[in-house]
Amino acid sequence: MFPEAESVAPAMTAVLTTVLTEGPLSRVALARRLGLSQAAVTKAARPLIEQGYLQELAATERSGPGAGRPASPLAICADREFFVGVKITADELIGVVCDLGAQVRASAHRPLPHTDVDHVLTELGHLVDELLDGPGDYRARTRRLGLAVSGDVDRATGLVRYSPFLHWHDVPLQDLAEKNTSLTVTVENDVKALTTAEHWFGEGVGAESFALVTVGSGIGCGLVVNGRLVSGAHGVAGEIGHVGVDVNGPACHCGGRGCVEAIAGTDAIVRAVGRPGLTFEEAVTLARAGDTAVGAVFARAGDAIGSGIAAVANLVGPSRIVVSGEGLSAYDLFEPHIRAGFQRQAFGAVAQCPLSVRPLPFEQWARGAATVSIQAFVAA
Amino acid sequence: MFPEAESVAPAMTAVLTTVLTEGPLSRVALARRLGLSQAAVTKAARPLIEQGYLQELAATERSGPGAGRPASPLAICADREFFVGVKITADELIGVVCDLGAQVRASAHRPLPHTDVDHVLTELGHLVDELLDGPGDYRARTRRLGLAVSGDVDRATGLVRYSPFLHWHDVPLQDLAEKNTSLTVTVENDVKALTTAEHWFGEGVGAESFALVTVGSGIGCGLVVNGRLVSGAHGVAGEIGHVGVDVNGPACHCGGRGCVEAIAGTDAIVRAVGRPGLTFEEAVTLARAGDTAVGAVFARAGDAIGSGIAAVANLVGPSRIVVSGEGLSAYDLFEPHIRAGFQRQAFGAVAQCPLSVRPLPFEQWARGAATVSIQAFVAA
Repeated sequence: MFPEAESVAPAMTAVLTTVLTEGPLSRVALARRLGLSQAAVTKAARPLIEQGYLQELAATERSGPGAGRPASPLAICADREFFVGVKITADELIGVVCDLGAQVRASAHRPLPHTDVDHVLTELGHLVDELLDGPGDYRARTRRLGLAVSGDVDRATGLVRYSPFLHWHDVPLQDLAEKNTSLTVTVENDVKALTTAEHWFGEGVGAESFALVTVGSGIGCGLVVNGRLVSGAHGVAGEIGHVGVDVNGPACHCGGRGCVEAIAGTDAIVRAVGRPGLTFEEAVTLARAGDTAVGAVFARAGDAIGSGIAAVANLVGPSRIVVSGEGLSAYDLFEPHIRAGFQRQAFGAVAQCPLSVRPLPFEQWARGAATVSIQAFVAA
Repeated sequence: MFPEAESVAPAMTAVLTTVLTEGPLSRVALARRLGLSQAAVTKAARPLIEQGYLQELAATERSGPGAGRPASPLAICADREFFVGVKITADELIGVVCDLGAQVRASAHRPLPHTDVDHVLTELGHLVDELLDGPGDYRARTRRLGLAVSGDVDRATGLVRYSPFLHWHDVPLQDLAEKNTSLTVTVENDVKALTTAEHWFGEGVGAESFALVTVGSGIGCGLVVNGRLVSGAHGVAGEIGHVGVDVNGPACHCGGRGCVEAIAGTDAIVRAVGRPGLTFEEAVTLARAGDTAVGAVFARAGDAIGSGIAAVANLVGPSRIVVSGEGLSAYDLFEPHIRAGFQRQAFGAVAQCPLSVRPLPFEQWARGAATVSIQAFVAA
């Protein structure tokens, strides 16, 4: 009916996304960056300015040959809208309020004595109320909630198909949480949520390709390739924990053999140490005290992680790799072996790929959940 | 200067690409498919029709509620322009002429007694002349040549950085071949070229993600993720041959240990059989005749390939995987073990990813080279 009108929505999304993640930017720079005409950028920006999501900063003089009238860069109005993000773990809910620029403005925790769905929803409701009704008066400008859950999550429908740590099967979390909180809910796998935050607002900004590896009870990986998160045609991607690196290695709970997680997951390490009653933390203490047998278990684990990271690098060639996760509390034991395994198996120029290590506290995972909700808002 | 004009070129590329790979399509369908307005599609299609690359097919009546005037689908004019594609192997040049729709219209071979660069260029010149001046009168409507070479190739500059089989280091092949043939030349890695052909004109058409695994002297992999070929930030990607699947396995020429190629490449198989003077073909014959020791070598090789394919699937979750390559002459020996290794290591829903096996004769690799040249034309 209005043939030109159809094309404004995608341009609005593109302009808002680019200013959010790379701004402030002038209309000229945006047009160049997005392959759009300046007229199209101006048209797309107008409703965003009118609705208070974008603002024009003071004009800066342009200099040099061909300088025309001064450019007024576009920037986001971070306080225009707020977003709640919650990471659901097996024993705790971690929640944050983020502004439109993904800055954390408030945070709160709630212990979870058990992971029964109804109980988690009740606690989630209390947590959201605490975050939105506390200081800051966020309630009036908050319409969306992002939830991050480990396991097999279908973001499109908000269904948690399987979450081993929560013991959940086919939980329609989006529907349930929307009823409980009256917010618009987006549900995403926790590693993918964290990767989205890094891609939009962290180390991966502007990267065409990027990998985030998380080390802990599970070994996970979020991937950005060709500028977008990799979701997997069958809903599964980034399963570095189930790359087989030792055909004669231990059996994995997934049915595979010598998977990275079967060698290097926290439980696998405790099992390999083989001393009844010993915890992971105690194994770390023994290795640090010079117990060579326990040290060898960590060495083998680090090598398996490094080899898995090299498989990621050899196959998709990311521009950078960040390693993180709660297992990093023992990073001094893992690191040299991760690097050695990576260097040995990285092919050719892939060995030059920067591998950085960064602690990401659970609050950052909650921020990842909020980021997914910001992304859903921008796309809508 | 002409703000709206800037936006026509990307739309022309998008329209031509979509009609090429998925056409014939009506303007309405194109607009929906590309997220453009119908007006923008009509504007982009006009010069393509005027220049003879697209044609309007006879209108088909639309029916059902809301049917307006009949839609005239747009289709390509395949004979408007022709493209030469040449695969350079260590002992032969294989060339084809393709039309704009990537249909092979003529083919020719030339033996290569050695791979000295000057010699290869001279023979390439003769091959191109033979293809263009033979029956079909292609010369007048051919401006472009695509070259496919195994190894580390920088498509952007047309430099062959390293090709082990040709013993080439830093050969500026694009520049040299342009001088020699007076055609506009595009150079690409052979596996990437073949993957491009499958993505644009083969089993991968329309796929957001797709993997092509080639088995032979080397084990290679071309990947399409998020709708585009994966190039690798450091110029390396798809190196399935150097995924480590057995940490205690044989050393690889790359410096790694237990790489898929070190277990399953043709040379590795001959080496593992360990009978002086025995060729790969003779090993195949022995295994088929029931030699259990030789059979076990093929079984281990197949398992390693399957495990490597599972690593690809677990990490990027392609919608489908095609296995091909000259090593497939022994596919009866490999196949059950490839499938077993894949099934064992594929994580969750990834095991459902269809794995198909398809012989691709060398002529198809030359068609891949021509496809890369068609792609360069469309982007220009």
